Amino acid sequence: MSFQKLALIGIGLIGSSIALGVRAEGLAGHVAITTRRAETLKQAEALGLGDSYTLDAAEAVRDADLVIICAPVLAYEAIMDEIAGSLKPGAILSDVGSVKGHVLKVLGARTPEGVHLVPGHPIAGTEHSGPAAGFASLFHNRWCVLTPAAGCDPEAVAGLTGFWRALGSKVEAMDAGHHDLVLAITSHVPHLIAYNIVGTVDDLETATRSEVIKFSASGFRDFTRIAASDPVMWRDVFLTNREAVLEMLGRFTEDLSVLQRAVRAGDGKTLEALFSRTREIRRSIINAGQETAAPDFGRPHDETGSE
Amino acid sequence: MSFQKLALIGIGLIGSSIALGVRAEGLAGHVAITTRRAETLKQAEALGLGDSYTLDAAEAVRDADLVIICAPVLAYEAIMDEIAGSLKPGAILSDVGSVKGHVLKVLGARTPEGVHLVPGHPIAGTEHSGPAAGFASLFHNRWCVLTPAAGCDPEAVAGLTGFWRALGSKVEAMDAGHHDLVLAITSHVPHLIAYNIVGTVDDLETATRSEVIKFSASGFRDFTRIAASDPVMWRDVFLTNREAVLEMLGRFTEDLSVLQRAVRAGDGKTLEALFSRTREIRRSIINAGQETAAPDFGRPHDETGSE
Repeated sequence: MSFQKLALIGIGLIGSSIALGVRAEGLAGHVAITTRRAETLKQAEALGLGDSYTLDAAEAVRDADLVIICAPVLAYEAIMDEIAGSLKPGAILSDVGSVKGHVLKVLGARTPEGVHLVPGHPIAGTEHSGPAAGFASLFHNRWCVLTPAAGCDPEAVAGLTGFWRALGSKVEAMDAGHHDLVLAITSHVPHLIAYNIVGTVDDLETATRSEVIKFSASGFRDFTRIAASDPVMWRDVFLTNREAVLEMLGRFTEDLSVLQRAVRAGDGKTLEALFSRTREIRRSIINAGQETAAPDFGRPHDETGSE
Repeated sequence: MSFQKLALIGIGLIGSSIALGVRAEGLAGHVAITTRRAETLKQAEALGLGDSYTLDAAEAVRDADLVIICAPVLAYEAIMDEIAGSLKPGAILSDVGSVKGHVLKVLGARTPEGVHLVPGHPIAGTEHSGPAAGFASLFHNRWCVLTPAAGCDPEAVAGLTGFWRALGSKVEAMDAGHHDLVLAITSHVPHLIAYNIVGTVDDLETATRSEVIKFSASGFRDFTRIAASDPVMWRDVFLTNREAVLEMLGRFTEDLSVLQRAVRAGDGKTLEALFSRTREIRRSIINAGQETAAPDFGRPHDETGSE
């Protein structure tokens, strides 16, 4: 379950949380950190997240038995161009991207013989980004989905499974396409909708806009948290999971048209019926241990409230 | 700032929070509680929320110098039929409804001469409902908007302002129509969207649906909280604030079409530009003291996470 050398390519919220979790649990002899921007690397070094720091990704992965790409998905091709020749035979190559079909295709085509490709997606995060945003408990009790390529070495999958379990995660293997469809509705479409409504507010006439901010403790606040997530990471999600996002977005907008018509027609029966059955879904999520039952997410109520 | 007798008509999340706040701050000599359902009244009595309990609303408001309706908006007409003849001259009549234009019209037409009508809307709440859901700090540092009728006695407005300030709120008077437009985008449309996407998930094929619940820690969870709010209260909001909701919903869906087109066209520039400017809005809300800056709302991260 322990690796001699772990290379983290990218050191944002997820990369830094892995680094801190690995240190806390003693999961690697050496943690090499590499990232594209010198400024970010300096920040990681100042935070003491790893054992070595370099802008040269090839150097970072040399002799590593576990390499995890923690960068926006559209950066993977350039990263592979840099590292493919330096990957150690027998090493596990993984990532943390929110889209898996595209990743499997891009990395699959570029992974050298003898390197075990096991893409992964820890379903965890906050709206904050950057190396200072990480914390070791981010993955505790959260799912990590692995989408190994067909014919992948079972020992490599077991090794990576053990790694994520040691970080506190629950692990499940899944078909990449199915992962992308499920995440489209649990994550990608909700983010698109949240970004969209916050954009709608941003476009309001100045007077109304400032009052919206003033009186925002009413549902809208929750959307702004989601819409504060990393822009580049999310741009890449929508560019690489287009079909599943459009499919789920299509269902959403169809349903919204029905609801809009009910509002226009004053059809209280349709509205109340929907509003009643949606409560059940939240109950299921709380029962599945995926959410806190505390009112208002347990937000501190002396400073902030909601609705 | 203190009232001899306060009558609360309806004792759900808001009514019970007022009752607890009034007790904590010593704002009324006597709190009379009335509600439509005997079972709810019994629950309120068992919780010790007031000083007297009755199913007879007329009896509850008799001699009260402050009457606050804390019921779904479409119940107001029937309530006024019961209480109008028993309201004490000089009393303040108020409410806590999320829609104010409709309320001003319905209550205005039924308020007897000599009674001061000052509708109100505490912008505070959680997704929980019922008499056991209330807590005294719910209104702390939250806005309460008052929408007095034209020509309303300034002393009555001042009295109710003092009452809400004593409960911990910030108070502002506003035109009812403007309130309804601002709340349509900060609260009503976000609720409609949240109800809608949770409904979309509920309609998914069984296998996918169960995985959505399992892997829901990813944005969708936040929507389910909003979509767990009281169904009848929200039905009434959409039936009584139709024009403003349709106006804001129209803007939202127009914007969403543009975004959908950008996803389909692979237009990363448009996506990234929107995703970047939405972060600013959240910063404004946090700076306005309307939201916690803690990551993920300060959700307990050992049990639950997000994204």
